[in-house]
Amino acid sequence: MSEAVTTQAAGATIGDSEFDRDTAVTERAPGVYDTELSAGWTIINAVNGGYLLAVLGRALAHALPHPDPFTISAHYLTASRPGPAVVRTEVARTGRTLSTGQASLFQYDEDGREVERIRVLATYGDLDALPDDVRTAAKPPAIPPMEQCFGPQDGPAPVPGSSAITDRLMLKLDPATLGWALGSPSGKGEMRAWFGLADGRDHDPLSLLLAVDALPPTAFELGVKGWVPTVELTVHVRCRPAPGPLRVSTTTRNFAGGFLEEDAEVWDSADRLVAQSRQLARVKLG
Amino acid sequence: MSEAVTTQAAGATIGDSEFDRDTAVTERAPGVYDTELSAGWTIINAVNGGYLLAVLGRALAHALPHPDPFTISAHYLTASRPGPAVVRTEVARTGRTLSTGQASLFQYDEDGREVERIRVLATYGDLDALPDDVRTAAKPPAIPPMEQCFGPQDGPAPVPGSSAITDRLMLKLDPATLGWALGSPSGKGEMRAWFGLADGRDHDPLSLLLAVDALPPTAFELGVKGWVPTVELTVHVRCRPAPGPLRVSTTTRNFAGGFLEEDAEVWDSADRLVAQSRQLARVKLG
Repeated sequence: MSEAVTTQAAGATIGDSEFDRDTAVTERAPGVYDTELSAGWTIINAVNGGYLLAVLGRALAHALPHPDPFTISAHYLTASRPGPAVVRTEVARTGRTLSTGQASLFQYDEDGREVERIRVLATYGDLDALPDDVRTAAKPPAIPPMEQCFGPQDGPAPVPGSSAITDRLMLKLDPATLGWALGSPSGKGEMRAWFGLADGRDHDPLSLLLAVDALPPTAFELGVKGWVPTVELTVHVRCRPAPGPLRVSTTTRNFAGGFLEEDAEVWDSADRLVAQSRQLARVKLG
Repeated sequence: MSEAVTTQAAGATIGDSEFDRDTAVTERAPGVYDTELSAGWTIINAVNGGYLLAVLGRALAHALPHPDPFTISAHYLTASRPGPAVVRTEVARTGRTLSTGQASLFQYDEDGREVERIRVLATYGDLDALPDDVRTAAKPPAIPPMEQCFGPQDGPAPVPGSSAITDRLMLKLDPATLGWALGSPSGKGEMRAWFGLADGRDHDPLSLLLAVDALPPTAFELGVKGWVPTVELTVHVRCRPAPGPLRVSTTTRNFAGGFLEEDAEVWDSADRLVAQSRQLARVKLG
């Protein structure tokens, strides 16, 4: 993995990076947090759902007695926009090894009234307190070396529709899952990529919440051209990721009735399956 | 499929069956529902998590303007017991095609105080209003005909630990995933079964919430002997199931750090993938 690691830019660290600054929350009152949604994590005009989940995840990490999201379920209610927002948290239960809480992100309408954007239920624990037994049966995705993969920066728009978020990500897609960008989708509903943050920040549980929702929709490889907004996204974080880039693999197996599921697996540089997610998304044909 | 269908007992119907009576809720005040958790859906002394989810799902179907759970995420806080319970619901957002709500199930401690058992976020819609396009890439599980599969009723305890719930289910396990019951688990983390209700009631979206959590834990096929309590369970219901028994397949790919995920797929007699679920469970070795 050392080759791959050295291709990342150096500099930013966990706690001192664009991602940390753009997901920062400030407690205004007990359990109530002010935040500013950055325009830097948008695709077209939509704020990325994984970035939003990381903001909520950070507020819950402060509100709950345990530091890490073990499982976090988000239902997306209305479309978020860059700008001020408030996160209201509530503790449901605190236990010795796990605690459960709830959080909602609100923005403001023209009359200054709060509009709820996302509601989240999450159970937190301490990843560092887990036993280190690993009996993972899944295998890391087969993906070519990073220098044989392609991102938005490579050449004249092999990945169309680039947006602000592409400047903040190190995203290198497996050419085998890039057919959609060249007009010939594979029909397979699979996407694979190397994933990092452009400023070289390593990963932590919060950036894993971003990683699961940062690839182009698998629906593109099914020939869908349109918008695939997330209805619900649940992420399991299973291990603190090792330094270095991640490999993310996404699949869709059930595209029917105008909806589809999308599963993501996130593998770290030590070949650990560090996060799994599933979302239900709606297919809005363009 | 006609052979399989005719092996089910006849009589009960959707709306008039044990499952319907045992998941019934009575509105006491706007959005607040009384219910009685039945001892009939317990395994050892634990109330089945899918049955509990169906009770919450029924309350939300009443509280929300849409009838069917499209995606429902449950976080399990404390262990439920048979007996009285109250479900408190809250509407988060209502839209034209989807609405989102929240529900909590409470029971009472020795002093009569409410103790929260489960908290749920769910987005509901109308399955009958969906377009009928199906581009499902997944294939139904390969499972032998029902008469070659085994349930708790077959012979001298091929499936140990039978409990009240086994009398209410028609559960026939694929012999290839029954090694654990014979002392030689496959090591594969897979379980497959035919699934129905013992009184012959056909399936609806609420009984699919039961179906995803009714098989023995896949962990048994990994050689785990112990308790595998659910931390969080999310179910996507994708289609109203056709009459007749279901095929349920469950898999575990990431058993590590004392936790595992378990994915379920539920197929109906018309070969439609009608529900998908994923849960995070904790492994408590016996």
